Amino acid sequence: MPELRKDPITGRWVIIATDRAKRPSDFIRQPVPPASATICPFDSGNEHKTPPEILAYRNSGGRDEPGWRVRVVPNKFPVLGIEGDLDREGEGMYDKMNGIGAHEVIIETPQHSMTLGQMSEQQIEEVLWAFKDRVTDLKKDRRFRYIILFRNHGEAAGASLEHPHSQLIALPVIPKRVKEEVDGGRLFYEMKERCIYCDIIRQETTAGTRLVSETERFTALEPYAPRFPFETWILPKRHLSHYEDSDAPMLKDMAWILRSTMRKMEKVLERPAYNFIVHSAPVQEPALPYYHWHVEIIPKLTKVAGFEWGTGFYINPTPPEESARFLRDAGLG
Amino acid sequence: MPELRKDPITGRWVIIATDRAKRPSDFIRQPVPPASATICPFDSGNEHKTPPEILAYRNSGGRDEPGWRVRVVPNKFPVLGIEGDLDREGEGMYDKMNGIGAHEVIIETPQHSMTLGQMSEQQIEEVLWAFKDRVTDLKKDRRFRYIILFRNHGEAAGASLEHPHSQLIALPVIPKRVKEEVDGGRLFYEMKERCIYCDIIRQETTAGTRLVSETERFTALEPYAPRFPFETWILPKRHLSHYEDSDAPMLKDMAWILRSTMRKMEKVLERPAYNFIVHSAPVQEPALPYYHWHVEIIPKLTKVAGFEWGTGFYINPTPPEESARFLRDAGLG
Repeated sequence: MPELRKDPITGRWVIIATDRAKRPSDFIRQPVPPASATICPFDSGNEHKTPPEILAYRNSGGRDEPGWRVRVVPNKFPVLGIEGDLDREGEGMYDKMNGIGAHEVIIETPQHSMTLGQMSEQQIEEVLWAFKDRVTDLKKDRRFRYIILFRNHGEAAGASLEHPHSQLIALPVIPKRVKEEVDGGRLFYEMKERCIYCDIIRQETTAGTRLVSETERFTALEPYAPRFPFETWILPKRHLSHYEDSDAPMLKDMAWILRSTMRKMEKVLERPAYNFIVHSAPVQEPALPYYHWHVEIIPKLTKVAGFEWGTGFYINPTPPEESARFLRDAGLG
Repeated sequence: MPELRKDPITGRWVIIATDRAKRPSDFIRQPVPPASATICPFDSGNEHKTPPEILAYRNSGGRDEPGWRVRVVPNKFPVLGIEGDLDREGEGMYDKMNGIGAHEVIIETPQHSMTLGQMSEQQIEEVLWAFKDRVTDLKKDRRFRYIILFRNHGEAAGASLEHPHSQLIALPVIPKRVKEEVDGGRLFYEMKERCIYCDIIRQETTAGTRLVSETERFTALEPYAPRFPFETWILPKRHLSHYEDSDAPMLKDMAWILRSTMRKMEKVLERPAYNFIVHSAPVQEPALPYYHWHVEIIPKLTKVAGFEWGTGFYINPTPPEESARFLRDAGLG
């Protein structure tokens, strides 16, 4: 008998097909091929092929010269434009706004062919610092109400360039999905006066069945009601609503657990395409007692079809207890 | 300057990249190949390869024999099981339910190789009747709170069998995405005492820029804030909340406009993969003044990536005014 499970934060139901549980090898996978040596605007030496850099951590060289370890540039084809005032307008019964925002690319390493799991812990730590530095800078701009950090890996996950990179988009509105999470957290807090994510971490640590790994400061786990097989969350153990308020020891620890989790996934799922998303509180809000920043990793193993689009209801053929076990058993601790 | 537009029903924002608008030919398309002559459980003569039929419209033959025009069978690998009582249960802080539901397949024609656009109007009309008949029957079962009808066409849209078919899933809960639409409609109704969909039809008919085609009883249009390029909605002009309450003249008219819309899409987008979803009111609700059934067609032209998963915010490279014009200009009215 399949099981219907409800995500406690958003109230989203999923169908967990427990009786025809799929093993990692059952998925039709297209491993992401190792990056090939093409002419790439993100390679060291090609700095002139990108818009001028916004930030770089360097060993040597000046602005827009080689010698950097991590480099942040504006997206050459931004989905939103940085210049102008926010302007809301009606169009009959509809609402629109001009597309003010920021769209940046975090080039994670000068090395063209690298997966997250192959990078050093130190390299990943610097990427996490670049995330923090860019959000801290951009949130001073009061037009921006939400800043999202994400990484698309592999063509199936929407990546158009193979050089290791993440993206940042600053938005003038708070997206619906974020609002749902924040509202869900607030509702729980009103009832219990506790953070729902802190409760989840406690329950999962006790149960252990959905736990992937733990460090002093972070927990990696499979959520109770995952939309997708091998959907994995990484949460800081200490309550914190905003990613950019993470301190140095946290970012160091986060680099370790993120690298470890990606190495496990790359092994168990054979270099899957995936999306990696930082969920953090709206940037203009103060520290919130009811929201808890975290990372969601979604490997691209199944196709989203009409049922999902029509209902927002997901069918997941792999129980999270199974996927957690596969990831735990992969070692690479 | 790109534009941010808000869906008036759900409040979902989308980014319409107006300044780098894409033409149909700009999309990397994989036309769905014509169905090949393989051994198919849905072909006439293979009736024994499916579970026993629930419904068939026939020219000749008995149950589970050839001679049918449309045939409905239980899904051989259902995502939910039909037997048992609804049983809600807690698991620590979490909620679960046993997976009670129905999962049926509507085999739309005995002919293996056929697209919706290639079918006759009469054939499509019979499929629409089968939808109505099955929902009318299943809603008598009070365990089911929502029934979704959908069609996945092409592998990229999640179809695993190429024989023309739709699916029906009956659920013991009202899915989140449906609740959002119904709640959005109710909120508007509380303010205006009008159906928001009726208002949309009026505004779009007057404006004309997003209109694809019209019949006496239906309107096909591109919504103001579409998530995807060439997302198309078909709505009955007369207010009606439940699909299954559509009468014979409506289903006849619907068959015409659905066929015409699919022929336009197949021409302009070169046989795209797509999802087709019937949005209808929860089955146990009476006729609702604030919800309006309709069909949403989503061709699979772009990839959903980290940004969309993280925010529920969509980036659409084609303004609906452009896609409406392409579809209108395709003729085949």
